[in-house]
Amino acid sequence: MSNGVDSTNAPRAVVLLSGGLDSATCVAIARDQGFEVHAISFRYGQRHNGELDRAAKQAQLMQVASHRIIDIDLAQLGGSALVDSSIAVPKSDHVDKIAGDIPVTYVPARNTIFLSYALAVAEVLGSRDIFIGVNALDYSGYPDCRPEFIDAFQTMARLATKAGVEDEQSLSIHTPLLHWTKAEIIQRGIELGVDYSQTLSCYDPQGVGEDTRPCGQCDACLLRAKGFAENEIADPALS
Amino acid sequence: MSNGVDSTNAPRAVVLLSGGLDSATCVAIARDQGFEVHAISFRYGQRHNGELDRAAKQAQLMQVASHRIIDIDLAQLGGSALVDSSIAVPKSDHVDKIAGDIPVTYVPARNTIFLSYALAVAEVLGSRDIFIGVNALDYSGYPDCRPEFIDAFQTMARLATKAGVEDEQSLSIHTPLLHWTKAEIIQRGIELGVDYSQTLSCYDPQGVGEDTRPCGQCDACLLRAKGFAENEIADPALS
Repeated sequence: MSNGVDSTNAPRAVVLLSGGLDSATCVAIARDQGFEVHAISFRYGQRHNGELDRAAKQAQLMQVASHRIIDIDLAQLGGSALVDSSIAVPKSDHVDKIAGDIPVTYVPARNTIFLSYALAVAEVLGSRDIFIGVNALDYSGYPDCRPEFIDAFQTMARLATKAGVEDEQSLSIHTPLLHWTKAEIIQRGIELGVDYSQTLSCYDPQGVGEDTRPCGQCDACLLRAKGFAENEIADPALS
Repeated sequence: MSNGVDSTNAPRAVVLLSGGLDSATCVAIARDQGFEVHAISFRYGQRHNGELDRAAKQAQLMQVASHRIIDIDLAQLGGSALVDSSIAVPKSDHVDKIAGDIPVTYVPARNTIFLSYALAVAEVLGSRDIFIGVNALDYSGYPDCRPEFIDAFQTMARLATKAGVEDEQSLSIHTPLLHWTKAEIIQRGIELGVDYSQTLSCYDPQGVGEDTRPCGQCDACLLRAKGFAENEIADPALS
């Protein structure tokens, strides 16, 4: 298959795009597989907007067919350090010190809500393919990143939709990064031409807009640094 | 168990409250089962706001512990007569003429999105019980009202959350109306003291605010009329 972005007959895929390293790689993979990519991002009361700036930049660099930014108010629910500024983001000096249990950066039901909107967009666009860059290996221990969650969501989604009534195998949730290390994700992304200088993975970045810089000490920063180190290349977002 | 509304030790339930007949009955049932009720409603680009006025009224009449109205923009997705004024709501003169296939009033992934928010609220409140007034008998043929959809959502929800990581039986989606006729729903609601004069079931009501009146000819109006007729009582919302 061709890269398919401009091909009118390409099947459509809805791809969750956060502006981080994983989702940018996910867009590149969906495009490489011949899908016409329709990206969606969420403004959900993040502590910073640098992430959405990067999402818009990636959408442009990857020439996606459409990019929706959907406003949802998870902040009013509270309960997570990522949307509640009264809860501190944990910091550490080494990736091996990331705690094994569910961290305070977990946002209640976030991926469930994100995937539900993706499902609605897919149904409206006549798409049967949703891509999400979750990862079960180098990840922070969120319950809604686990393979069994994704499988269960797919089963539910097939039953939830018109397409599912007509064809029970109708809809697929693609998780190409699920079993890859961060180093493998970066390696594949570089092969596909992802510009990682325009991605932001940090849970607690400093500065605003295009000047946003990662903190270097949260789980996401530590995992990202490990991935670039294992590829023996410098993180272009830090140069 | 007592009605439990003011009891501090009552378990919390999140109840989806639309302002229609079914969800009002659902609140009464959750309360009767001893739950402290936390109601949630959605402003999702409905053609009218009379529904939300009734939801607020029901929340007050039923003395719920909290009532959240969450803004979500399904209208920007399009694709349904309920949120897209360019698509006409089908009208008929008799309930038996309701078409068997999925109607144009279906909103893509609506119940999936609604239940996902309910899941987030439940997680924040420490609740393990969600009530939704879906009905698989006297209903309009939406795929996301079917029992197999609800079962699949519950399975997914248990895997999505912190509670589910600790206890796989953690979370229940209650659907007390699932196998009842509209007449049975109304009968139970009257036993529990539901004030049906303050409910609105119509897909295409006329007027605004408290003066909103049902059209009498959409699927929802026809099913409601049949339910009251079978109980041999007049619909108090029409008096």
